[in-house]
Amino acid sequence: MVVIGLGRFGRSLALELADEDTEVLGIDENPEVVQLLSGSLTHAVRADSTKEDALRQLAVHEFDRAVVAIGTDLEASILTASLLISFGIENVWAKATSEAHGRILTQLGVQHVVYPEHDMGQRVAHLVRGRMLDYIEFEDDFAMVKTDPPTAILDVPLSSSAVRTRYGITVVAIKRPGEGFTYATPDTVVRADDTVIVAGRTRATERFSELR
Amino acid sequence: MVVIGLGRFGRSLALELADEDTEVLGIDENPEVVQLLSGSLTHAVRADSTKEDALRQLAVHEFDRAVVAIGTDLEASILTASLLISFGIENVWAKATSEAHGRILTQLGVQHVVYPEHDMGQRVAHLVRGRMLDYIEFEDDFAMVKTDPPTAILDVPLSSSAVRTRYGITVVAIKRPGEGFTYATPDTVVRADDTVIVAGRTRATERFSELR
Amino acid sequence: MVVIGLGRFGRSLALELADEDTEVLGIDENPEVVQLLSGSLTHAVRADSTKEDALRQLAVHEFDRAVVAIGTDLEASILTASLLISFGIENVWAKATSEAHGRILTQLGVQHVVYPEHDMGQRVAHLVRGRMLDYIEFEDDFAMVKTDPPTAILDVPLSSSAVRTRYGITVVAIKRPGEGFTYATPDTVVRADDTVIVAGRTRATERFSELR
Amino acid sequence: MVVIGLGRFGRSLALELADEDTEVLGIDENPEVVQLLSGSLTHAVRADSTKEDALRQLAVHEFDRAVVAIGTDLEASILTASLLISFGIENVWAKATSEAHGRILTQLGVQHVVYPEHDMGQRVAHLVRGRMLDYIEFEDDFAMVKTDPPTAILDVPLSSSAVRTRYGITVVAIKRPGEGFTYATPDTVVRADDTVIVAGRTRATERFSELR
Amino acid sequence: MVVIGLGRFGRSLALELADEDTEVLGIDENPEVVQLLSGSLTHAVRADSTKEDALRQLAVHEFDRAVVAIGTDLEASILTASLLISFGIENVWAKATSEAHGRILTQLGVQHVVYPEHDMGQRVAHLVRGRMLDYIEFEDDFAMVKTDPPTAILDVPLSSSAVRTRYGITVVAIKRPGEGFTYATPDTVVRADDTVIVAGRTRATERFSELR
Amino acid sequence: MVVIGLGRFGRSLALELADEDTEVLGIDENPEVVQLLSGSLTHAVRADSTKEDALRQLAVHEFDRAVVAIGTDLEASILTASLLISFGIENVWAKATSEAHGRILTQLGVQHVVYPEHDMGQRVAHLVRGRMLDYIEFEDDFAMVKTDPPTAILDVPLSSSAVRTRYGITVVAIKRPGEGFTYATPDTVVRADDTVIVAGRTRATERFSELR
Amino acid sequence: MVVIGLGRFGRSLALELADEDTEVLGIDENPEVVQLLSGSLTHAVRADSTKEDALRQLAVHEFDRAVVAIGTDLEASILTASLLISFGIENVWAKATSEAHGRILTQLGVQHVVYPEHDMGQRVAHLVRGRMLDYIEFEDDFAMVKTDPPTAILDVPLSSSAVRTRYGITVVAIKRPGEGFTYATPDTVVRADDTVIVAGRTRATERFSELR
Amino acid sequence: MVVIGLGRFGRSLALELADEDTEVLGIDENPEVVQLLSGSLTHAVRADSTKEDALRQLAVHEFDRAVVAIGTDLEASILTASLLISFGIENVWAKATSEAHGRILTQLGVQHVVYPEHDMGQRVAHLVRGRMLDYIEFEDDFAMVKTDPPTAILDVPLSSSAVRTRYGITVVAIKRPGEGFTYATPDTVVRADDTVIVAGRTRATERFSELR
Repeated sequence: MVVIGLGRFGRSLALELADEDTEVLGIDENPEVVQLLSGSLTHAVRADSTKEDALRQLAVHEFDRAVVAIGTDLEASILTASLLISFGIENVWAKATSEAHGRILTQLGVQHVVYPEHDMGQRVAHLVRGRMLDYIEFEDDFAMVKTDPPTAILDVPLSSSAVRTRYGITVVAIKRPGEGFTYATPDTVVRADDTVIVAGRTRATERFSELR
Repeated sequence: MVVIGLGRFGRSLALELADEDTEVLGIDENPEVVQLLSGSLTHAVRADSTKEDALRQLAVHEFDRAVVAIGTDLEASILTASLLISFGIENVWAKATSEAHGRILTQLGVQHVVYPEHDMGQRVAHLVRGRMLDYIEFEDDFAMVKTDPPTAILDVPLSSSAVRTRYGITVVAIKRPGEGFTYATPDTVVRADDTVIVAGRTRATERFSELR
Repeated sequence: MVVIGLGRFGRSLALELADEDTEVLGIDENPEVVQLLSGSLTHAVRADSTKEDALRQLAVHEFDRAVVAIGTDLEASILTASLLISFGIENVWAKATSEAHGRILTQLGVQHVVYPEHDMGQRVAHLVRGRMLDYIEFEDDFAMVKTDPPTAILDVPLSSSAVRTRYGITVVAIKRPGEGFTYATPDTVVRADDTVIVAGRTRATERFSELR
Repeated sequence: MVVIGLGRFGRSLALELADEDTEVLGIDENPEVVQLLSGSLTHAVRADSTKEDALRQLAVHEFDRAVVAIGTDLEASILTASLLISFGIENVWAKATSEAHGRILTQLGVQHVVYPEHDMGQRVAHLVRGRMLDYIEFEDDFAMVKTDPPTAILDVPLSSSAVRTRYGITVVAIKRPGEGFTYATPDTVVRADDTVIVAGRTRATERFSELR
Repeated sequence: MVVIGLGRFGRSLALELADEDTEVLGIDENPEVVQLLSGSLTHAVRADSTKEDALRQLAVHEFDRAVVAIGTDLEASILTASLLISFGIENVWAKATSEAHGRILTQLGVQHVVYPEHDMGQRVAHLVRGRMLDYIEFEDDFAMVKTDPPTAILDVPLSSSAVRTRYGITVVAIKRPGEGFTYATPDTVVRADDTVIVAGRTRATERFSELR
Repeated sequence: MVVIGLGRFGRSLALELADEDTEVLGIDENPEVVQLLSGSLTHAVRADSTKEDALRQLAVHEFDRAVVAIGTDLEASILTASLLISFGIENVWAKATSEAHGRILTQLGVQHVVYPEHDMGQRVAHLVRGRMLDYIEFEDDFAMVKTDPPTAILDVPLSSSAVRTRYGITVVAIKRPGEGFTYATPDTVVRADDTVIVAGRTRATERFSELR
Repeated sequence: MVVIGLGRFGRSLALELADEDTEVLGIDENPEVVQLLSGSLTHAVRADSTKEDALRQLAVHEFDRAVVAIGTDLEASILTASLLISFGIENVWAKATSEAHGRILTQLGVQHVVYPEHDMGQRVAHLVRGRMLDYIEFEDDFAMVKTDPPTAILDVPLSSSAVRTRYGITVVAIKRPGEGFTYATPDTVVRADDTVIVAGRTRATERFSELR
Repeated sequence: MVVIGLGRFGRSLALELADEDTEVLGIDENPEVVQLLSGSLTHAVRADSTKEDALRQLAVHEFDRAVVAIGTDLEASILTASLLISFGIENVWAKATSEAHGRILTQLGVQHVVYPEHDMGQRVAHLVRGRMLDYIEFEDDFAMVKTDPPTAILDVPLSSSAVRTRYGITVVAIKRPGEGFTYATPDTVVRADDTVIVAGRTRATERFSELR
């Protein structure tokens, strides 16, 4: 795996990959950034990814997966992505910082375009407004929410409170204070100081988290 | 709700809030950005949020929730957050772009610090490496994954394939081609062209998505 | 016809079009440049061509031919070309200032990419080296050259000097001092002070011009 | 031959010369550019061509042909050209980026001034507007055009269709699909899928290319 | 003692400490400044105090007193102070250049915030306006003033002129021309060419200095 | 009184003067700064103080006292001071930011040169090191210190503890918790929770404050 | 007379001309400079002298004398001079700031090139070294010097001291204290406190001034 | 002799001094400039003349003559001059670029202030306007002019044409074509193609040069 651009996003991505033993070649123009990560990634190299020669010397064209994590320098992002596509790399991921940036990446042939700022903005919007403790949503209108349980479902087995019917959500897991998560079963009894994880359609999970 | 800083992150956050009928006062220094959002938010105002006078004229000190979505200008982010804290606003959220930035915000008294680039980096790491279609994780080592189902669970009721016991995950929902998601029940039978959503501990969901 | 970018290249292109009564909408970010051309083009407008709104207000999406003549600002060139392609404009021409620039334009979907500096460099190379008075070459190894005639073909009809057989070229036209060009026929007799235009394979025309 | 300034135009010029075995001394201020060409030119040297000492050390004053291919830096172009003229070099070519630039070069004593952007703008104007496949024009109102043949001249010998009389042009060569060009003779029969090269007065060639 | 930032203020502070044999570790980003002080302080080191690693390498976290004397770079001042606080250093002093700067330092947890420009402005205001030779004031409305004595107290013992009762001040010391200060006693007789130091409430000392 | 330069130092100086009803003409190049102070000073005017015309229009040459409080722009400070001296203004005060700056001001003829950063650095050095609560020193080695009283002088009249003889200082005033300062007399009895103000030679006051 | 560029040199030149009632059109790009001189010259106009249109609107092409007094902006100086030459103005003077600048101006066709910094440097060198009170030299090795007279020529008629023979110079005029200059005649008797003006070959005048 | 600042003016001054065997220590901040002059001056050194240490290391404080030839950087000029004055150097010359600059230099204590641009402007004004071939003027209204002789004085001995009486000038020397200057005597007969040098009051010399 090649990760080009080791700013906030790329660094976090590369380290997460390295943590799970994926071989990662990290590339950045900034020698300090490269220095910082040199112990944590398989290879961390200072190179100008907008130059074909530089990428070829690192054998980037032989990889089948690459991430362009360059964010603020639109031109560098586009030049780099263009080279990766011209190399025929099958899976190219790239971070976009605006709609126009995203459209250009797609037109160049990038298969997966990510918008971190935009996506996190949406996610935080749900947290900021309501009583949820955490929130995440897939693109297909399906969300998972961490929240305090409403009174109505306390102290009886989940099967009795019929959350799926009444609230359109499913309780996936619960967390007792001081413990990890355990999966919910029909017999699970939620207590007032538990935290619950529920899944379901976006709107339904949100409504559920607003109940008291 | 006040959202200060209407860049990528703040804009997406503010629009998501507005979409669900929350009143939003959006503030940015850039008149073009403000102009762009003036039709979509309750109020969109050009102001220098680092000046106490400017914030008071907009009655920002009377809100009980505020988001500092200023990202690239560390100084402006800190000056603004400092003012909100000095106003005694109860819930202040702020975006951080580095650990140092986050630590300062916390020391100032900001309750909720968010790291969009960092969090999205981690999320995308899972997608980039594997066969998952989508992936999200809560801080407490609990993840939800969208993936193609492995052969082992096809064509029998979920109760028979005992995914929870064998794979340590729970199948939350499935999606037939061309339809929305429906909740999984013990009787649900997964087909080869379905997409499944499974939840569980991070490692377990990931391992499940690697099965064929 | 839309011409975006009215620098040296775009201006010369737009004026040449206007001279032959083609309707031209010229767009540039620089008000002085626009002012300068306002009398010479059908419309000359100051606009930021990297913004979709700006282009739509000028109905650029309804044209079927457009030239992106932005040269020095790579980013603006790409953003503009990307928009034109997304509008579905059929014939997009764009000027490239480097190979990488050209490759990106092609990947975006631009049909015709031009390299003025590069092409003129090649053309002038032929003039600089030799005795030719002018030189032009098509991509398919076919050139036209203006030169003084070699002694060997003087004072006899062209049919006698058999230039096509002996030199691999064809004499297209000749110019007497003080007159315009006239087409060469087999009967044409070239004089020492005539200028001749010959066509043929690149190498052959060049060799012919070196004869004395 | 000395080529000073190895940007787009100068590089293309120098490489074209080198391709045909002309000895070329290439000079540029940018060490990267020099490095890039060091294998392709006889000599490629980093030097500040605005300094008399620097040029003399390279024996530039002993050449009899030189090209000033510096484009964007007006001052450097003028200082360099001024030195070459003061050396008494007989043939100095220089690229101009504006009329004023061109006038100054001429006043200094430069014999050949070239305007790449301007000339290519005019050339492309002809291609953009019409149905021509390629187009080039000499200064004396004489052009060569590559185009699809109009129906009227198909399938009969060129001598029968009398193109010179009827259209004021002469058919120089034709190209069968998949072959190179061959010279046209009175007996040549043009087919519908041939490409023809015609020469003649600018206006006449253009009108001919518009025929169907 | 650590002094971070060796501009005008920090340098004067560090040198004053060193003059009285306090061990001082001086830190600045500017190598010239560090060089200049390297002979005068126990240690003078070039380091980027906004980086945790840099400070830890210098064992800054083991000190119990530190001064952030960075003035003009608000961001560096805040980042540095934040680190010192996170180290748990007990006594952190910091210079502020504006109210907002001071408020942030206090919110971060800095115990002692100093405003040199502001305080000196106030002090000089008293000198500029009046006849005082020097003036200093504590925050609690208590000042010490050096002035020429008014006629009314000349040539009699201080006990007779009853300055405390009549002017609300106390004469602390007097200075004969060519001598140092000697403490005033009730028997002290002030002469016309003496200088007196009086202490008392701000307003009273000032009024006293206006007497003739 | 004219105050030129309304940054931190000049503003504080001007406001202190205005607070005590001195007429102040404040001049600064920055319209925002002028605006801010326009309600607080007799006159606050935006002008370029380096231009003789500008100063004359404001009748600056008719004042007999002026302060050049320009700090960071050495050139502006010198140009302004030079003009004031050439006007023949009797009392010119100027702030210096370095020794060289101070020397130039003195050579120009400025009578009173102030070094806020330097002086405050020295003052804070005393506070940072020791147990003093506040500290100020005149140039002639005479200081006033606010400190907690040492055990040795508690609970007996000051006349008994003979501070002047034993410690070489004089106790000027004491402050009971929750009260203002009252002058010390021989009969004053200091308590453990009082704060005392002592005056005396620099070294003596400092030594006194170190006693326990 | 047109004077283009009203910096130190151009302003002094233009004002000297205006003082003697020559009509002067002064042109500068800087509105402040133009404003300053608008009362002193016949016309003072803000214009960009590098634009042909701007100069033509001011009828500059109809003048027969022009001075290009632009100094620091080499490009503007050259562009302007080039235009004046292309207008066919007969007498063009231009100031050069370097040898290269001067050579270019000459190549463009400027008749009179002046080097103020260089010439004044030479003149001051004579004054700095020696005992001369003033010194000026023509290009042809002929100088005029103001100096105190040597003892050897005092108190006798000039005819007796034979200065021309002995020192190779001629005494042109003498100045009695408190009077203007009067021409020297053979009968003139120089006194010890007179000042003399002598002319002659550079070296001779200098040697004369060194005599005591 | 020390010359600080080796731009146009300083270089010309230093070289003129060196030409006549004066020992010159040249100082400039620019290493290229120093390099250029290192062969021509006794010592040419790169140093920052605004730093006391730098000047002392070069023993500048031991010289009794120094020239500050720094022109464009007002601050550096003033800092340097201030140091030289503080060293007690007896003869300090400095170049000023504006009246304010000159006034400051004088206030600092510089004895000789020179204005090259201003003085040359005045000199050239005389040449530009009239028929003079060269012109120079002392401050005391005494000028020397090189001009073509008017008809009235041709072909008779100078004693006959009585130039001193009729024109108020004295003919100092004449130059035959192809020869150097020779002193004029009463017997000198001026020819039409001679050049004459006349001296006298400014106005008179000028009027004389206008005669035909």
